[in-house]
Amino acid sequence: MEYPNNIKKPNHKTINYSNRGMDLEQFINETNEYYVEKDIALIYKKPTPIGISEAVYTPHGRIIKNGYFKSPSTLDYNGVYRGKYIEFEAKETQSKTSFPLANFHEHQLGYIARVLQHGGICFVLIRMNHKVYLLKGEDLTQFISENTRKSIPYEYIVEKGFVIEEKYNPSLDYLKIVDQVYFKGESLWQKN
Amino acid sequence: MEYPNNIKKPNHKTINYSNRGMDLEQFINETNEYYVEKDIALIYKKPTPIGISEAVYTPHGRIIKNGYFKSPSTLDYNGVYRGKYIEFEAKETQSKTSFPLANFHEHQLGYIARVLQHGGICFVLIRMNHKVYLLKGEDLTQFISENTRKSIPYEYIVEKGFVIEEKYNPSLDYLKIVDQVYFKGESLWQKN
Repeated sequence: MEYPNNIKKPNHKTINYSNRGMDLEQFINETNEYYVEKDIALIYKKPTPIGISEAVYTPHGRIIKNGYFKSPSTLDYNGVYRGKYIEFEAKETQSKTSFPLANFHEHQLGYIARVLQHGGICFVLIRMNHKVYLLKGEDLTQFISENTRKSIPYEYIVEKGFVIEEKYNPSLDYLKIVDQVYFKGESLWQKN
Repeated sequence: MEYPNNIKKPNHKTINYSNRGMDLEQFINETNEYYVEKDIALIYKKPTPIGISEAVYTPHGRIIKNGYFKSPSTLDYNGVYRGKYIEFEAKETQSKTSFPLANFHEHQLGYIARVLQHGGICFVLIRMNHKVYLLKGEDLTQFISENTRKSIPYEYIVEKGFVIEEKYNPSLDYLKIVDQVYFKGESLWQKN
């Protein structure tokens, strides 16, 4: 379907996103574009699931007149890297001491365990205290199974996570860490 | 975000989908739910990408007042099966003699080649002449590279494709064919 001529192209600058998480998401989107351009990986942000209550037909196609956002029950990003399935979520918190599990939607935590069970690579990128950590899905689910706390202490993230450097082009080269963590074994990886 | 109370839950029976492709999509969605329930695979239809021209805030969350559908440049379904990345598209045609390549959106054919290059399993499910065929991405891209025709002759699909039986629960057990085609080598698979 072509872009309808009678609809203003959305100006992303005027759309009021929730600020929280936006910067990290931008970094990841830029990085994913870099990976696609350089033929490194095909990883995309999934479109937000939308429910449609009212739609009308126009000469340019079907237009949504009333729609709402659904809660995702899977994670935000997925794709293929070195033949493997990869799926992850990106989250940030302003808290300096712990990462609240309420940042996840219902079902997402259970979903992470299922991706792992099917042999996929699954992790969370957590931005906290001005650093971005890759926390393996295995370490996240282990924490949840062994704790009743509603948040993950920062010390746990520092201990288990892997710091991803923010740099220029790509801005957040998380696949470099994925290589080290998932493709050569953890013991080869020197933690920052 | 919770389901807004003031918005009628969409009744899928009243939404006027394009009829073409709908039945096949229903079969696949049912089958994917079966695979998830039985812990066989995690494969989902990607949400249709939406552009938003106008949105308003309500006590129940952000509501889309003007949105349009974007053309997907990737394929409709993706997920993880036996640790591997899997992505595919489902198409049907009323034509008895050939499958028109115009059924694909721009960029989709090139995208199939890229998924293959990254080691993903990628194919098309084609419903034609009351049968559903799995046509490997490799065979589709080979046809395109060797032909200038705008449609694939039915004979090519019969020759290269693998018939997927329609049956009861799951209605379209395409992973059975994926097992035979991708996990044991093609030579072991007796074509129907």
